[in-house]
Amino acid sequence: MRDERILLDHGSGGLLSNRLISELMLPLFDNSFLSMQDDGACLDVPAGRMAFSTDSFVVDPIFFPGGCIGDLAVNGTVNDIAMCGGVPRYLSAALIIEEGFPVKDLAAVVQAMAEAARNAGVLIVTGDTKVVPRGAADKLFINTSGVGYIPKSVSVAAGNARPGDVVIASGTLGDHGIAILNQREGLSFDVDIQSDSAPLNHLAGRMLEMAGSGIHVLRDPTRGGAAAALNEIAAQSKVGIRIRESSVPVAKAVAGLCSLLGLDPLYVANEGKLLAVVESALVEKVLAVMREDPLGRDACIIGEITGEYAPAQSGRVIMETAAGGERIVPMPTGEQLPRIC
Amino acid sequence: MRDERILLDHGSGGLLSNRLISELMLPLFDNSFLSMQDDGACLDVPAGRMAFSTDSFVVDPIFFPGGCIGDLAVNGTVNDIAMCGGVPRYLSAALIIEEGFPVKDLAAVVQAMAEAARNAGVLIVTGDTKVVPRGAADKLFINTSGVGYIPKSVSVAAGNARPGDVVIASGTLGDHGIAILNQREGLSFDVDIQSDSAPLNHLAGRMLEMAGSGIHVLRDPTRGGAAAALNEIAAQSKVGIRIRESSVPVAKAVAGLCSLLGLDPLYVANEGKLLAVVESALVEKVLAVMREDPLGRDACIIGEITGEYAPAQSGRVIMETAAGGERIVPMPTGEQLPRIC
Repeated sequence: MRDERILLDHGSGGLLSNRLISELMLPLFDNSFLSMQDDGACLDVPAGRMAFSTDSFVVDPIFFPGGCIGDLAVNGTVNDIAMCGGVPRYLSAALIIEEGFPVKDLAAVVQAMAEAARNAGVLIVTGDTKVVPRGAADKLFINTSGVGYIPKSVSVAAGNARPGDVVIASGTLGDHGIAILNQREGLSFDVDIQSDSAPLNHLAGRMLEMAGSGIHVLRDPTRGGAAAALNEIAAQSKVGIRIRESSVPVAKAVAGLCSLLGLDPLYVANEGKLLAVVESALVEKVLAVMREDPLGRDACIIGEITGEYAPAQSGRVIMETAAGGERIVPMPTGEQLPRIC
Repeated sequence: MRDERILLDHGSGGLLSNRLISELMLPLFDNSFLSMQDDGACLDVPAGRMAFSTDSFVVDPIFFPGGCIGDLAVNGTVNDIAMCGGVPRYLSAALIIEEGFPVKDLAAVVQAMAEAARNAGVLIVTGDTKVVPRGAADKLFINTSGVGYIPKSVSVAAGNARPGDVVIASGTLGDHGIAILNQREGLSFDVDIQSDSAPLNHLAGRMLEMAGSGIHVLRDPTRGGAAAALNEIAAQSKVGIRIRESSVPVAKAVAGLCSLLGLDPLYVANEGKLLAVVESALVEKVLAVMREDPLGRDACIIGEITGEYAPAQSGRVIMETAAGGERIVPMPTGEQLPRIC
C-alpha cells in the first residue's frame, strides 16, 4: 500500500476505506475501543468534571523541522485539555485527505500521531476519514477532539487571574511559528530552529499537583502567540497585565529571524509552551517543579497581574521595554502567518 | 458583518477571530460552557459508560434541498452517538473556512447548526475556527465530535447480531444521496427529493426504552448506504444477513432517479435513517413505538440475520430479488458519490 496514492474510494465507507483503516490505522492506534469499529467509542468514565476540547490542524507544510501535522494535532488537543486543568485520556482523530495524497506520507503522519499519543499517555479511540477530490483541500487536514478528567483540587480558567498574581512562561517563545515560516516561505535561513510541538499535560500536572488551586490560569499561546493569550486573560479576568521585555525568553536564532522579518515574537505561535498565572506566594515552588521537567527547563517569570483594567480592548497588556519605556501589547489584528497550525 | 467575506484574519486567533466568535457564534450557540471562552469546556459528568464520536463534513454543495452542511454536521454526530446506544449531550464544532467565503452563508450554516442542536437536545460547548487561503479548501468543512451517556440497560454494537434476529429499517433509503446528486451534477430533474438529514436520538431512545438489550445493533447507513452498514454488521457479528428487495422501502422519486442513473438505493447515503437488528420476539413492539415517531413512521422489516457466515468478504449479505432470485450485496467498492456528507 505504501507506494499508492489516496483515492476517493479510500473515503467511501466501502472496501478501500476498511483496508486503509485496518492496515494503516488500527495497528498503530492499537486499543480495544477503536478495534470495536463502531460509530463511536464506548468509554467507562468516573463521576466528576470533564474537559472537552477540539482543534483542526491545517498547517502548511505538513512536515517541518521538529514535527509534522500528526504530532501537532495530538499535542494541540492534549494541551487544550491540560490548559483546562484536565488529565487528557481519550482523543478522536478525523482526517480530510486530498485525492492523490501519497499513502507513505499519510503513514508517516499516522505514525507521528500514534507516537505523540503514547508520549502524552492518551488513547485515540474513534475516528473518521474523508477524501475530497484533488483541489478541494490542500493535502491533509486533521481534527482532533479530546476528553480528560479535571481533578477536584483544580480550578483554572482564563477568568481567574487576580491582581498580584505572577505570570510565568514555561520556555522560549516563537519557536513553532518561526520554524514553519523559515521552511515555508523558501527563506531557509541557515539556522536550526525547530518547532516546539510537545505535550504539556505532564508539566501542567506537576504544577497543579504542587500548587492546586494556586494556579489560576493556564494557557498555551498558539495562534496569535503570547500577545493573544495575555489579552484574552486580561479581558476574561478584567485585570491588567504588565510584562517585562527583558524577561521574555526568546531563543537567539528566533529573535534574530524575527528582527530580520519585522515580527514580534510575542505574536508568533508556540505549540509546546504554556503561560501560567500563579498566586505569588507559590511562584518559587511552581518554578522549581517546572524546571525539573524537560519542557519547563527555561521556565521564568515574565510579568504580573495588575488591577489596572482598561475597558477598551487595547491597553490591557503593557510591556516594560528593554529601553526602559512602556508600550501597549494589543490583541493581534491581521494574520501574520496563515496555516501555522 | 453580514455583507463581508471571511478573511484570513478571522482565523488568526486575534481581534477579528474574537469578533466572529462573539458576534456570530456565541449568541446562537448560547450556553454557559461555551461563553467561558477557555481552551475547552468543563462539564460535570456522572459515572458510567460514555459514547464518544467524531465526524468531518465536506458535503458539496453546502446548501441542498432539505438541509445544509450545518444541520448535517450536528445530526451526523448526534446519530453516531445514538447508534452507540448513547444519549448525546455535548458537541464540539470545528470549522475550516476558505478565505473569501461569504459571512452571510456562514451565518446561515451556524444558524442551522444551532437549530439542529436544539432539535436534538444537545449543547455545542467548545469549538475552533481556522481560515485557509483561497484555493486551499473548498468553501467550508465542519468537524463535530460529541459525547453522550449510555444507559445501563443498553448493549448495542455491530458485533451483537445473532441468527434469528430481525433487521428493521426506520424509513425510505437513499433520499440524502439522491437529493445531493440531483442538485450537484446539474441534473435538476424536476422532482421533489429532499435530504432526510435528521437527529435519530429521540427515535433510538424510544426503541431502547421499549426493548432494552433486545436491540442488538443500531447503525445509520450514511456513506456506502445500507449495503456498507449491513456488510459491516455481518462481518463484525460473523453472521449472514438476508434481505428482501420487495421489503426495502425506497421513495418513488428516489427509485426513479436511481434507475435512470444506474444507482442501487442500497448503496446511497442516508442522514436520518437507521437500521436496527432486533430480537425477533420484540420486533412488533419495537415497530409500534418507531411508527409513533415522525422519523420512524415508515419503519418496516427488511430481512433477518442468519447463521450462514461467509468467511470471504462477499457473500455475507444476500438479497432475495423482487423477481424471485437471489443476489449477493457486496461491500461497496469505488466511490459513487464523493462529498456526499
